[in-house]
Amino acid sequence: MAVIDFWYSIGSTYSYLTVMRLPEVAKASGVAFRWRPFNVRHVMVEQGNIPFKGKPVKSAYMWRDIERRAERYGLTPRFPVPYPLEGLVLANQVAILGVEDGWVQEYTRATYRRWFEAGEAAGEEPNLSASLTEIGRDPEQVLADAQSERIVRELQAATEEAMDLGIFGSPSFVVDGEVFWGDDRLDDALEWALKL
Amino acid sequence: MAVIDFWYSIGSTYSYLTVMRLPEVAKASGVAFRWRPFNVRHVMVEQGNIPFKGKPVKSAYMWRDIERRAERYGLTPRFPVPYPLEGLVLANQVAILGVEDGWVQEYTRATYRRWFEAGEAAGEEPNLSASLTEIGRDPEQVLADAQSERIVRELQAATEEAMDLGIFGSPSFVVDGEVFWGDDRLDDALEWALKL
Repeated sequence: MAVIDFWYSIGSTYSYLTVMRLPEVAKASGVAFRWRPFNVRHVMVEQGNIPFKGKPVKSAYMWRDIERRAERYGLTPRFPVPYPLEGLVLANQVAILGVEDGWVQEYTRATYRRWFEAGEAAGEEPNLSASLTEIGRDPEQVLADAQSERIVRELQAATEEAMDLGIFGSPSFVVDGEVFWGDDRLDDALEWALKL
Repeated sequence: MAVIDFWYSIGSTYSYLTVMRLPEVAKASGVAFRWRPFNVRHVMVEQGNIPFKGKPVKSAYMWRDIERRAERYGLTPRFPVPYPLEGLVLANQVAILGVEDGWVQEYTRATYRRWFEAGEAAGEEPNLSASLTEIGRDPEQVLADAQSERIVRELQAATEEAMDLGIFGSPSFVVDGEVFWGDDRLDDALEWALKL
């Protein structure tokens, strides 16, 4: 069966759309997705790619576009949402731990839901502990492990791997060496996977 | 009947996709499009929005993404194509004249085809004269008129109008006060127009 690598950072706004709809898309298509958290902020700083900061017109469009697209997907975000995330790195360190322990999807969806639907910034309290409790994890233990040197390094390694693949933004889908960037390229990535 | 304003600049890479497929989309949907050339470079400089310059990874992705999307639409671009365009302003002054005289679509498609399929930069010779001749216009007369003070001002006015609408990139579709940015938002704009 075809597998698509789903590269994302908690902290990316458009990734909300993908995170919330991906389980259904996977089920309907029969394509498996491997969730790969990375630090998109590091990549963007490295590449001098600053999509929204200091760009009020483009930023206003981005929120309106997400609002309209969310409605298409039956999602119910409540704007404005906190942005950018101060806790981006920690949010994704937790996700890296979740990959190892098998709860990355549940955590990512829980934290995004609180971020976009309850206005609680991801990567910070109360979002972190509430999301972890909701999925049956011990927040104290997880937060300690997520900040261990090993996990810090694993997030950095994942971020390097993403850059090596040609990734510059989140979400990105990688299949067969092809990068597809943006929630709006999920269909293209699926088609590519299905014709393999 | 619903009308969508199609705002674009000759010089925008992704606009190639829209310019080439729009007549068919209009026919199939029954939705009319009003072609509105503007100077996207002026808008981007004004807003500090530089999507590709100095960003080799994102630029490489952009060309590959256009190549894949072009194939979906049955188009046959030949890469690399000259970019960015030195003659962007003149290319769009000619388009503004074409709006007045009723040949903007034909000119825009002819000049994009030469740019993307024959490697001739739009807004420069031999592309300009060949495209105008191909659509039955007198290049000498058109190029003189397109550089008149009146047309120079009209392109500036169109660019101001685009910014007032909240446009920051090309292509953009505007319907019912809603801006949809990118060739990949054409379907969203169509849906919006059809539900009016």
